Parts: sequence; C-alpha cells; structure tokens
Amino acid sequence: MSLTHTDHEGKASMVDVGQKEITRREARAEGYVYMAPATLLLVKDNALKKGDVLGVARIAGIQAAKQCSQLVPLCHPLMLSYIGVEFALEDAPSADGQARIRIETCCRLNGQTGVEIEALTAASVAALTIFDMCKAADKKMHIEGIRVLEKSGGNSGHYLFDAGADVAGSAV
Amino acid sequence: MSLTHTDHEGKASMVDVGQKEITRREARAEGYVYMAPATLLLVKDNALKKGDVLGVARIAGIQAAKQCSQLVPLCHPLMLSYIGVEFALEDAPSADGQARIRIETCCRLNGQTGVEIEALTAASVAALTIFDMCKAADKKMHIEGIRVLEKSGGNSGHYLFDAGADVAGSAV
Amino acid sequence: MSLTHTDHEGKASMVDVGQKEITRREARAEGYVYMAPATLLLVKDNALKKGDVLGVARIAGIQAAKQCSQLVPLCHPLMLSYIGVEFALEDAPSADGQARIRIETCCRLNGQTGVEIEALTAASVAALTIFDMCKAADKKMHIEGIRVLEKSGGNSGHYLFDAGADVAGSAV
Amino acid sequence: MSLTHTDHEGKASMVDVGQKEITRREARAEGYVYMAPATLLLVKDNALKKGDVLGVARIAGIQAAKQCSQLVPLCHPLMLSYIGVEFALEDAPSADGQARIRIETCCRLNGQTGVEIEALTAASVAALTIFDMCKAADKKMHIEGIRVLEKSGGNSGHYLFDAGADVAGSAV
Amino acid sequence: MSLTHTDHEGKASMVDVGQKEITRREARAEGYVYMAPATLLLVKDNALKKGDVLGVARIAGIQAAKQCSQLVPLCHPLMLSYIGVEFALEDAPSADGQARIRIETCCRLNGQTGVEIEALTAASVAALTIFDMCKAADKKMHIEGIRVLEKSGGNSGHYLFDAGADVAGSAV
Amino acid sequence: MSLTHTDHEGKASMVDVGQKEITRREARAEGYVYMAPATLLLVKDNALKKGDVLGVARIAGIQAAKQCSQLVPLCHPLMLSYIGVEFALEDAPSADGQARIRIETCCRLNGQTGVEIEALTAASVAALTIFDMCKAADKKMHIEGIRVLEKSGGNSGHYLFDAGADVAGSAV
Repeated sequence: MSLTHTDHEGKASMVDVGQKEITRREARAEGYVYMAPATLLLVKDNALKKGDVLGVARIAGIQAAKQCSQLVPLCHPLMLSYIGVEFALEDAPSADGQARIRIETCCRLNGQTGVEIEALTAASVAALTIFDMCKAADKKMHIEGIRVLEKSGGNSGHYLFDAGADVAGSAV
Repeated sequence: MSLTHTDHEGKASMVDVGQKEITRREARAEGYVYMAPATLLLVKDNALKKGDVLGVARIAGIQAAKQCSQLVPLCHPLMLSYIGVEFALEDAPSADGQARIRIETCCRLNGQTGVEIEALTAASVAALTIFDMCKAADKKMHIEGIRVLEKSGGNSGHYLFDAGADVAGSAV
Repeated sequence: MSLTHTDHEGKASMVDVGQKEITRREARAEGYVYMAPATLLLVKDNALKKGDVLGVARIAGIQAAKQCSQLVPLCHPLMLSYIGVEFALEDAPSADGQARIRIETCCRLNGQTGVEIEALTAASVAALTIFDMCKAADKKMHIEGIRVLEKSGGNSGHYLFDAGADVAGSAV
Repeated sequence: MSLTHTDHEGKASMVDVGQKEITRREARAEGYVYMAPATLLLVKDNALKKGDVLGVARIAGIQAAKQCSQLVPLCHPLMLSYIGVEFALEDAPSADGQARIRIETCCRLNGQTGVEIEALTAASVAALTIFDMCKAADKKMHIEGIRVLEKSGGNSGHYLFDAGADVAGSAV
Repeated sequence: MSLTHTDHEGKASMVDVGQKEITRREARAEGYVYMAPATLLLVKDNALKKGDVLGVARIAGIQAAKQCSQLVPLCHPLMLSYIGVEFALEDAPSADGQARIRIETCCRLNGQTGVEIEALTAASVAALTIFDMCKAADKKMHIEGIRVLEKSGGNSGHYLFDAGADVAGSAV
Repeated sequence: MSLTHTDHEGKASMVDVGQKEITRREARAEGYVYMAPATLLLVKDNALKKGDVLGVARIAGIQAAKQCSQLVPLCHPLMLSYIGVEFALEDAPSADGQARIRIETCCRLNGQTGVEIEALTAASVAALTIFDMCKAADKKMHIEGIRVLEKSGGNSGHYLFDAGADVAGSAV
C-alpha cells in the first residue's frame, strides 16, 4: 500500500488519468454542522419562513464542487454533469445537548477520475457557509463527519460506507 | 438572538462592515482527519523522508483562506496579512482504533471584520487535500472537529474555546 | 472630454487611483429581465412557495460584484463593505404584452474609486442567473435597462439618474 | 411548463446533463450599450486610431464566457471550442437622440448542454467593459437588448430570434 | 505565414478547435531562475532539510497550468490529464558567476488543442514562486530560457527543440 | 542571510506584514520574447494595422498582476492602485539572428508589502500571451530576462537594477 499522489521520494505528483476509461462516475458524501439547539431553531425559523440560509449554503456547495481542482492541488479539472446538495435539520439533541444540520452531497461525471473529493468539497463549503451565517448567534458550532458515503464507476469498484461495520463504537 | 446574515424576511443579506472599526484581528481554528493507523504510517513515512503531503496541504489551506470570499457567499473580500497552517500526526489510536492528523490554522487581518471563517476554510481545505492524497489507501477517512479555537479583535471581544467546559461528555 | 481609460494613442490604461482620497462611496444600479407573463408566473409561483430562483440570483449578483475586477479588465481590485441585491416582480404587462423582473443593486466601499461598475456587474449577473433558471420555459427573454441609479462619494460629486429628464421620450 | 432548474419544492437544482447526447452546439447573442452621440464619437475616434476600447471589451467578453459556470450558479462547467465577440458602432441617433454600440457574440461547444448563457455572459461583460471605459465621459449610458439570437444543437431544436414577429410594437 | 490568433484586420480571434481531432497531446517546457551562488545555497540547504521551497513552486506550477485559460486570453479551457513539474539545482556557476535552478514541466491532454502554453505557464509560475521565496535574499535574480522542449500529438506533428542547431552561438 | 518565506525547519511560511508601515510602493519589471525576425514582422504588421496582439498581451498582464496572490502561494492579497504594461518591438537582430519584443511593467500600491512579484507576474503573463498568439508561426520563441528593474517604498529601501554593474559579461 502506498500513496498514489507522491512519487518514491515523497514528492507531490499528479496521477496521469489520460489512459483511464471514461465511465459514468458518482460519489455521495455527507457532513454535519453541530450547534446549540437555540441556533438550530433560528435556522428552522428561517427555513419555515423559507429564508435563504440553506439555499445559500446549497449554492456555495455547488459552486465549490466546480472549483475543486483550484482548491485541492492534485485534483484534475473536471466537467461535472451534476452536483446536488441536500440538508436535514436534526433537532433531537445529541447526548451532549447539541442539535445539528446534516448535509448530503452528490456529484456525477462521465470521465476518467472519481469525484469523491468534489462531493466532499461541496459538503465542506456548504458547512462553512452555514457556519458563517449562524456565527453571530453561536461561536461554538463545529463541523463533523465529513466522509464519503458511496462511490461508483471506475476501476476501484463500488464503495458503500457501512456505518455499523466501520465505526462501531466510534465516538463520532 | 437572531441571524445577522438574513433580513427580517429571512433573505440573505451581507452585513455592511463599512462603519466598523479597523482593528487587528486574529482567529485560530482546528480540524482533524481521521484515518486507519496504517494510513497515518504512510503519511508519517512521507513526512520522515520529508515528502510533500503536509506541505501540499499547507499551501492548499493558505490559498483557500485567500479565496474565502469566493467560496462563502456572504463573506467580505479581505486582505489577510498572515495565514498559517500547522499539522500534528497523532498516531496513538483512539478508542475506535483510528489515528488522526491535527490541523491548526491562524489568520490575521487589520480590518473591519473577523477572520474566523477564513481560518476554518484553511483548515477544511487542508483536510480535504490530505484526504485527496491518501484516498487511494483509505476510503474510510473522515474529517472531524472543524471549529474556532480563538478569536480576538473587534467588538465581540475575545473568544477562547474551552474544550472542558463546552463539550464535556461530547462524543466528538 | 476624453476617455480616461485610454492614453493619447488610444491604448488601454488603468487609472492610478493611489493618490485619490479614501471616502465612503456608494453606487446603486438597476436592470430588468423581460419575459412572457406565463414565465413570470412560474417565478412568482416559485417565490410564493419561497423557492430559490431569486435567492440564487441574489447570491450570483453578490459574488459577481466581488469578482468585478477579474471580469472588467481596467477595474481595480476592491474590498467592498456591502453588496445588496433586491428584486421586484412586475406582472402588469407592458405595451407589448411582456412582464418583467426588476433588479436593484447597491455596493458600498471605503476607498479610492467609485463602485458603479461593481453595482452594474451585480445587476447583470443576477439578470443572467434569472435568465438561466427560466430559459427552458422562455427562450425569448431579454435583459434591458442596466444603468446607474445613483452614485455618491469621490470627486465627481453626487449623481442621481433622473428618468424623466434624461430619457423622456425614450423607448426604453 | 415548469422551471427546470428548481425541484418541486422550488429549491435550486442543477440539471443532470450526463445522459444527454454530445452534439455540436452553437449560440449567438446580442446586446447594446446606449450612450450620448458625443460619447460614441470618443469610441469612434479611439477605434479610428485603432485604440483598445473595443479590443479590451472583446477580451473581457471572451474571458467571461470561459468563466460562466463560476458566475451563474447552476451552469455546468464547459470546454467551449470557440468564443467570438464582434462590435458595430451605430451612430445614427435613435428617436431619443442616443447612439449605441452593438455587441454580437458566438459560442460553440461539442458537448451535452447548450451554450446560450455563455454567449449572453460574453455580451454582458463586453458591455460592462465598454461602460467602464467610457463612464468618465458619460454617466447616463445604459445596457439594453441582451438576448439570444440563435441556438442550435441539442434536443430543443433550432431557435432563431425573429425580431419582427416577437417584439413588434415593443418599446425596447 | 500569418498569425492564427488574429483575423485579417488584426483583431484578436480565438481559433475554433471544435472540428479538430481528439488525440493524445503532450508538451514539455523548461525555464531557469538565475541567482547568486549564495542564494542557491539557501535553496539547497532548504532542499537538504527537505524544506518546502521547491515543493511550493511545484504546486504553484501545477495550479497555474490548470488556470492557463484564465491567464492567457485566447487559450481554450482544457481538462489536463497530467501536469508534472521537476527541478534541478545547478550550482556550477556560469561564466558570469551565477548559479541557477532548472525547471522542467510536462502537460498531457486527450483533446483538440496543444498544451504547450500550459507547460510554459507552469514553468513561468514555478519560476515566479521560487523568485518570491528567495527575493529577500537576492533582488537580482532573473528568469531565463522559458521555451518549449517537445510537443507531440495533433496536426502540426512532433516538435523537438534542438539546442545545438537552433541557438548555436546564442547568448542565452 | 536566510529565506524569509520558510521557517527554521524549511517549511513554507507566509510573512506577517500586518505590522509593516503603509507606504506608497512601486515596482518596475521587464522581460523579453525572442523570436525569428519573420515572426516579429508579423507582430509589427499587426501593430501597424493597429491589431490586437500587443493589446491582448497588455490586458493579460494587467489581469495577471491582479491575480498574483492566487498564482504565487505565499504572496499576500493586495489592492494594486495601478498596473501598467508597455511593449517595444526590437527588430535589430541580435548576434544569433533573433528579434525580440521588450515588455516593461509597473505596479503601484499603498500598502504593507512590495509589489515586485506582481510586476514580474504581469511581465511573465504578457510574454506568455505574445507566445500564444505567435506560436503557430514560430515554435522556437523563448522568454528571457524577466527581472526587477526598480523597487521603491518600504523598509528595504530603493533598488535600481544596474545592468552594467551586475551582469557585465553576462550572456543574457
């Protein structure tokens, strides 16, 4: 097992994807913004009056996925055919009394390389945007659980995150 | 308590910072990339031979902080005077058998608005870059604990994250 | 009277604003997207259920104003302190049976140069975004009346567009 | 008839173009910058001595078309094969005593989605650039008539704007 | 012989590559940063302790190649499949007592247009980055010999720079 | 003497300019594109009919200077007050039978950091743009002599490149 993005001296090295097959590729990712229940109520109230908080975060996530190769240096420039960003407000407080917003993203491409970093980037920037819009109300928010949920297409086969198997006992 | 980035109808609204005082502002943030211990060993090996994994992630974090206002829609364009990104490899496995890389960022500005979103953005994109460079070895990595550690300058006073007080009992 | 952005040979030339006074500057601009009344009904329906069409256009306008110096070659990079984008749905059909959406933008800066191009850019890109989101329903939309409404701050004094005086008899 | 860029709840939604046919697509658009006849004379004089005003506007339009997916949130990233921007100085004053510059743009793509927004973006930013370069001479300029002239390729068939039929009697 | 990027009036004109064949294309380029031998020693010392100077320059070169169409106005947007940037420290002083760092870049694409400008852009920006990181130590550095080494794929056939034949007697 | 952009371990580190004095800073840089005399004739012919080759290169240089902090990772974001790019066609063949175009750039800022990298970036990208527009006619062009001519403002004092003293005997 070795890192594909560095050479034998450890120097950064872009993977040449030019010989890879063009296939339909999809990746789904998720992430969470934890906040005080009172903060979630503000977002919920904004959502109830159909305000813009989640709409702005969606656009930010979509635009970030498009810019992924400018943000993550060894990513290839891609022409994504689809980017989706969805939210769920989870107000049942967790054990430590926090509420959270769940973000789920999906990216698709007909191309030569996987798009999971694009999906993760969309989730991360959507989370940062929620944070930005709520920060005056709650300085203690935190972003957790940015991970790949599913990946298909390409040589490495289908990958499906199995929460039970993989992080059983995990605190996160 | 209300959201400062939406108006009374809930619509997105940029805060006018033009009348705020120009002060020296600083924010520090952190984040973590969790991975299998074997994956951390690859990064550690890369770091031992002074390879580029963490160096690339540092540059990605710095460049992302500069681009923050292009990523997070209601952020103001800023001229940061300093952006720092540091890493720590924490190979003592956690309860669920995972190792992790800690990222700490710092942004400074002489200006009219806080820079915590810039610091969080630097941490997020540095984390995504580590993820990208290690993803062939470990699909199950996840990014956790992106939060503000400290913020100073401006009207809202000094903020220092107190892990003990705030997330005692927290699963994260 | 001459062009300030070209030299005596007619070559492009950036104006050196380094010696200008730093003042509080503001510019307001407007623009219109004309469409079939049935198309406006779709936007109105989207707005009634508090959908995202106008919210997305607002964010697009805000982000474009920030990027103005990358789009318009002789514009200076600026740190806008405020960008606002508002919409009005005007469904009373005009003489030729068309409905329209009015866009009004506002940009503010403490700086050395006016911000009317930034306000116009916000209006233009908000209009393009509405066009994009409605284009499957109406290919014949058109964008009209992108102009400066008011400008203040700086040496050139206060400017207020006087529709009656200036375009009396104008077809637009 | 419905909006393709929003879902049934009215939320923004990118169209997945991944299953669409790859065809040769072309779109042409136009737009106008209205100005005082004396302002047009300055541009004409600049053009006569082969100055840069229109050349700068052409480059701005070309570069903006390439950046379209960064400006208009639900646009797909594309690899345009051609972008053209042409100008005509129309100094015969209109009924209200104004002269104007006509802009015509053309974008081409072998791809899965139409390029009319790219052509409109090129026209809009070329117009903004002319405005910027002439604004010191004429604050009352305005941009009008940004529309699609022709679109070909793709499922929706050939579209040709018919000025006589569509806006007969139109004030614009 | 004529310029392909201007029309018969000399106006800028993007080449329409839409009808060109999609082939595997590659270009290699080189460039040099000349500096005082003492400055090269600082870089060498940084490299010996496996510091970041060359690693940062590599990432800057890779990112610049991806952005080439935003920098060079008539370049087409491309999806490069590979970008490589390598360095050699050449400390044997030249006739005028200077040392230098050699940069060699490589870009690959499956596409309709050559990638030599992308390779030259990577070399140029890598050189600028080295300059930036060393400028406090040596104001007199200079960048030389940015040229295409080899180009393959496409109609124009294989091109290989022949230093002996072409610049025999050249001062550079 | 040491590198200011790396720490004691050699890791990349942005200089904190927040405490530096705000002064009026200016930098001038130059660069050359060498080409066959026949190629220069094409550019000259284009310039004679007042074509766009040099105009496009000027705009490319100006836009690149604005984007410098996105290209060169440890550069600070800046608000340049002026960017100028000038050209001279030098058709007297050099010893090795080559003609050349000279590029001179100037950047100005009221700020806390020098702008020589911005001036060098403008020269480099203007050179790349000339290269791009002439490459179909001349594959053997090369870019030489990118250097700082003069720098003023800031603590490091006035710097003026002295060609005679510094590169006496230099081949370049």
